[in-house]
Amino acid sequence: MSSSAMKNAVSHSRVPAGMIQPAIVGATGYSGYELARLLLRHSRMKSPLLLAREGAEQGAAYADYYPQLSGNGTHHLEPFSWQLLRARGVDVLFLATPHEVSRELGPEAAARGIRVIDLSGAWRLREPAHRAVYGFHNEADPEAMAFGATVVYGLPELHRAGIEEAAAVANPGCYATSCILGLAPLAASGLLDAAAGVICDCKSGVSGAGKEPTARTHFVEVADNFSAYSVFRHRHAGEIAEQLKLDDPALTFTPHLLPIPRGILSTIYVRLRSAVTEAEALSIYRQFYAEALFVRVFAPSRLPEVRFSAYTNFCDIGIAVAPDCRRLVVISCLDNLLKGAAGQAVQNMNLMFGFPEQEALA
Amino acid sequence: MSSSAMKNAVSHSRVPAGMIQPAIVGATGYSGYELARLLLRHSRMKSPLLLAREGAEQGAAYADYYPQLSGNGTHHLEPFSWQLLRARGVDVLFLATPHEVSRELGPEAAARGIRVIDLSGAWRLREPAHRAVYGFHNEADPEAMAFGATVVYGLPELHRAGIEEAAAVANPGCYATSCILGLAPLAASGLLDAAAGVICDCKSGVSGAGKEPTARTHFVEVADNFSAYSVFRHRHAGEIAEQLKLDDPALTFTPHLLPIPRGILSTIYVRLRSAVTEAEALSIYRQFYAEALFVRVFAPSRLPEVRFSAYTNFCDIGIAVAPDCRRLVVISCLDNLLKGAAGQAVQNMNLMFGFPEQEALA
Amino acid sequence: MSSSAMKNAVSHSRVPAGMIQPAIVGATGYSGYELARLLLRHSRMKSPLLLAREGAEQGAAYADYYPQLSGNGTHHLEPFSWQLLRARGVDVLFLATPHEVSRELGPEAAARGIRVIDLSGAWRLREPAHRAVYGFHNEADPEAMAFGATVVYGLPELHRAGIEEAAAVANPGCYATSCILGLAPLAASGLLDAAAGVICDCKSGVSGAGKEPTARTHFVEVADNFSAYSVFRHRHAGEIAEQLKLDDPALTFTPHLLPIPRGILSTIYVRLRSAVTEAEALSIYRQFYAEALFVRVFAPSRLPEVRFSAYTNFCDIGIAVAPDCRRLVVISCLDNLLKGAAGQAVQNMNLMFGFPEQEALA
Amino acid sequence: MSSSAMKNAVSHSRVPAGMIQPAIVGATGYSGYELARLLLRHSRMKSPLLLAREGAEQGAAYADYYPQLSGNGTHHLEPFSWQLLRARGVDVLFLATPHEVSRELGPEAAARGIRVIDLSGAWRLREPAHRAVYGFHNEADPEAMAFGATVVYGLPELHRAGIEEAAAVANPGCYATSCILGLAPLAASGLLDAAAGVICDCKSGVSGAGKEPTARTHFVEVADNFSAYSVFRHRHAGEIAEQLKLDDPALTFTPHLLPIPRGILSTIYVRLRSAVTEAEALSIYRQFYAEALFVRVFAPSRLPEVRFSAYTNFCDIGIAVAPDCRRLVVISCLDNLLKGAAGQAVQNMNLMFGFPEQEALA
Repeated sequence: MSSSAMKNAVSHSRVPAGMIQPAIVGATGYSGYELARLLLRHSRMKSPLLLAREGAEQGAAYADYYPQLSGNGTHHLEPFSWQLLRARGVDVLFLATPHEVSRELGPEAAARGIRVIDLSGAWRLREPAHRAVYGFHNEADPEAMAFGATVVYGLPELHRAGIEEAAAVANPGCYATSCILGLAPLAASGLLDAAAGVICDCKSGVSGAGKEPTARTHFVEVADNFSAYSVFRHRHAGEIAEQLKLDDPALTFTPHLLPIPRGILSTIYVRLRSAVTEAEALSIYRQFYAEALFVRVFAPSRLPEVRFSAYTNFCDIGIAVAPDCRRLVVISCLDNLLKGAAGQAVQNMNLMFGFPEQEALA
Repeated sequence: MSSSAMKNAVSHSRVPAGMIQPAIVGATGYSGYELARLLLRHSRMKSPLLLAREGAEQGAAYADYYPQLSGNGTHHLEPFSWQLLRARGVDVLFLATPHEVSRELGPEAAARGIRVIDLSGAWRLREPAHRAVYGFHNEADPEAMAFGATVVYGLPELHRAGIEEAAAVANPGCYATSCILGLAPLAASGLLDAAAGVICDCKSGVSGAGKEPTARTHFVEVADNFSAYSVFRHRHAGEIAEQLKLDDPALTFTPHLLPIPRGILSTIYVRLRSAVTEAEALSIYRQFYAEALFVRVFAPSRLPEVRFSAYTNFCDIGIAVAPDCRRLVVISCLDNLLKGAAGQAVQNMNLMFGFPEQEALA
Repeated sequence: MSSSAMKNAVSHSRVPAGMIQPAIVGATGYSGYELARLLLRHSRMKSPLLLAREGAEQGAAYADYYPQLSGNGTHHLEPFSWQLLRARGVDVLFLATPHEVSRELGPEAAARGIRVIDLSGAWRLREPAHRAVYGFHNEADPEAMAFGATVVYGLPELHRAGIEEAAAVANPGCYATSCILGLAPLAASGLLDAAAGVICDCKSGVSGAGKEPTARTHFVEVADNFSAYSVFRHRHAGEIAEQLKLDDPALTFTPHLLPIPRGILSTIYVRLRSAVTEAEALSIYRQFYAEALFVRVFAPSRLPEVRFSAYTNFCDIGIAVAPDCRRLVVISCLDNLLKGAAGQAVQNMNLMFGFPEQEALA
Repeated sequence: MSSSAMKNAVSHSRVPAGMIQPAIVGATGYSGYELARLLLRHSRMKSPLLLAREGAEQGAAYADYYPQLSGNGTHHLEPFSWQLLRARGVDVLFLATPHEVSRELGPEAAARGIRVIDLSGAWRLREPAHRAVYGFHNEADPEAMAFGATVVYGLPELHRAGIEEAAAVANPGCYATSCILGLAPLAASGLLDAAAGVICDCKSGVSGAGKEPTARTHFVEVADNFSAYSVFRHRHAGEIAEQLKLDDPALTFTPHLLPIPRGILSTIYVRLRSAVTEAEALSIYRQFYAEALFVRVFAPSRLPEVRFSAYTNFCDIGIAVAPDCRRLVVISCLDNLLKGAAGQAVQNMNLMFGFPEQEALA
């Protein structure tokens, strides 16, 4: 990432004259709610269209799902249709939907000239082997392949220039954001000894599992508990490997479920190609993120904790170097619903439309 | 409650010679699990038969539902049938089932000579108006009426003698146990000014809502939260009113959902017919529960808290008297799955079979 | 409260021309942090002076106490002195301090022409009997008595006009805000049967107990637990009684400790002088708060919950009327650190300086 | 560990004829309480002497510290003195004390013929470099060195024969128990590629931090949070390295604080010297622990979770093997207060006195 790619210089011709009309599909989920909340306080956006594809939700008052939003005006869930999107002049469509739905809606929106920000895993991966974990084996759908080739991986700290020009963005996974941002400076510096293996031991709050009530999300099963899941089998591993150009066997990714509503802490273990001091390593991180508005590199005396970045769009990063100067532990924290989902989506939108990057996020 | 009714004198002729065979319907629920756990460590009981009425559970290893019980032998869920109960010589049937199921199975079990301990609300209430909240309006089912007349309300501290002789026991509700035990000494002493109103402000952990995953029990909805529900409409109000002989308008009962897995604390507000000091009031409570093995009356300097009775079969009671000596607050705590459900069920069983009251519960 | 008192009409002459300089004493506590956070995003305020009276804190980086605030610039705790306040041209002094400290600093600040918003209990009470619970028995300190007479009780929904003109405001207690706002419409309407007794059963998150580590705030003692405390002895009872003009014996106030970081839910029980329907009662509340920007009256189908108002400056109110139409339960929720402390303090400041009431709070 | 070492054959001459008298120093801490609770229900033990070294505790009712234990008789804290221990005929002394205190009391108790079970880190380590982290640099204290040489590391699954004969036992650390039991089968089988590095990413509930209220254990700081601490600097690393004969640079140990009261989950990452299938690896674990009463090896379909072993003396172990068959993840769970402290101490005592290993622990 070059420093020029990071800076906030916006080609003003991209800034729309009037107010932008956003729409959200999947507004009743946790990420969808955070999107609605952020967009409602965005100075350049009209009230978002809240779209429901299921009958039960259509027409319902949004405050029935999220009473916490009442007092901010009255909003209703409207039935999704392309006609409605056209009638309302929707400029940008947020897909807070299962990946199968995003797979269906993304290309169509693009074809209709609507910019797309997809929060699912449908369009994040290039490698067929990685895509296969989402059930997208078939590379023979030329339309999907063509659309997919235009989608930019929406991690602003790595792909800012591409996002600014993109018509469609694949918003990264929450775990993936945390791990990639935690490792990128080491990978870029050439210090990372990938052959020795990279271990991402990640812990997430329960909102990452979605709003659907299941045995796994029942309060009594989660409270006072802690557990690993999907060991060697989680979908976000592909994103991390692809973005950091790691071979699969080099990466071990273990997600765990924390008994908290929101927040991710990733503890990342790497070996270094050459010995460094903690000060040298910190300097590499600080330089890499010097212009990143939403990455905070913590001082050596204090490591990030989940609560420091909760309810914010920050990714907080801290490091510790072993006495032998050849092993390094990265602690990377973020709010899975904000920097890990809706916040990053708005950050991407700000870049796509030439708005200040922090608008609605500070 | 006379002191003779309380004492642990057991007519030894009632103690069965061999080991007792229990069976549990509904062993996959939270109360069912606690029952299984307690019965497995009961010195006079064979391993409980674990019975499932639904296809998916039948034949499954119990450890698939409760891995925490593994290492205590291997147990499977067997399909419920009266034939199986007879073949295995079941002596006592625990119904940890929805009240509709208990309504169906209770009379049949009794007719077959099997003792019944029902943990649902099906048979707790005498007053037709109270029973109506369970949908049992029809008094025209003579078999149900006849069986219902034999069922004893299974609160040992109030109905010990009846329980010892009973063939069927209706295990009290968790909230009801807490409130009735908190109020019984005042009611018995004549101090309670029922006409001035009794307010039971009750708070329960989430296991009281059952194991079914719902929007209400999703971790993200419960954690960091607290809420009232069913205000003026909760079913346990009838039990409290009936046991304490309170008119309905005299009783205000408000349940709340605590963000903890288990435990109930009831804060009970009453007015007194005559002024008493805290010492006098405490003495009334201490005398009333002098022989109750599972009620602890706390000293004035410290009030009960949820964690003190969690994982025990105790109901803990503390009081505070207002400076005007005419208002009294009772704090009553118990574990909703033990003294509020499975523990009390085993306590009842111990009395029914002439076992020591504390067996498997200490 | 008249409707004219509620409206947002600001005499523009009171709006200061330049930016206002605030200072906070006690910025390392939980309310102090929330104040700092809110003031930093206030468009009419300079960065707050963060003042420490204890040696250990003086000169420390504020991010050492609240790393979550880093990335918002660098702030240090400076040693409190009147000289410093004068040198920096402090316009308004927030006291997030123990009441003894507020008792000392309040009159001196006023004498120096600095407006005061005191978050402690030092100046909230008029009745000597109520003040006595804070250890302020002595009415013989004429300076304190004179200053006290000028202090306005800072509940904007009841005392808006007074706050707009005040030089010193006593910010209400968190429990008191919740209970007074829950009861005020009934009291004003004449429906409240105070003689029959008012019961406030209140539950608060742990941040209400302050940041000092004690046995009572240790995670292991609080988690999975719930407890009542200070029954018939809590200081906030005086505020509620005084603001609602209730005799002490009429009011029973019981605080409880919830195992959550923040939020209050008060369940309030009253009897009515005449029968009302739920719709009539709701209409009384809606009318009373028609122009209140920070009170939300919930629809009958849904009651407020702690999480709906958490992280906001709203007080959410819902009611349920008994079938006999003579008993009413009020559920009143707020965030104890915002509407119950720092948020309300900023709301008061906005009124005192003629800023939009919602500035920095929406 | 040979299978003969594991079996429960007890030389009956070691079983004492009468009841054993235990004493606990440090009974007011969390481990001390669990010890008291377990010993009170042990069929071969007299009531434990509860000893306090600090003035404030001496003579206090134990129920003032742990009201949950009331109803089990009345117990008081007595001032510690060797005279008292002799007068009461204490047979075994549990030290639930800071390591400095254990350092002082251990040798003296042994010299007086009292068996010692020390729950601190004072006597766990052989290597001077490891001991140094406890501040025990000086090897010149011959009495301490002599006593230390007699102390057996009290992990029954590895050192059963030694414990059975020991006069003094060093009860392992909670993290160390979890990691050593998770790794021992791999180390014994020769599969473990130690040179490639072993990573122990461990997460513990807050009771592991002790009962002293600190900023780190304040509810508001812990709830909704998760954090790493003491990265590359935690004392338990020495125990793990020493027991498994790992060089220090081979072991990376990172503890984290979970927002739960109790329980540890360790996620352990290793590389294997040769490729194995999951079935082969499981078989190695099952065989190694075939006779271990308190280790449960989980089936491949389900991994251990914190709640499964909470409130038990079990260490639960599960594994997952990478698709490349060369990397293995171990999940190891236990209750830090039981198998990680008081439970294991009682298990050790049972072995030392020839009691059934499960007595008071099942």
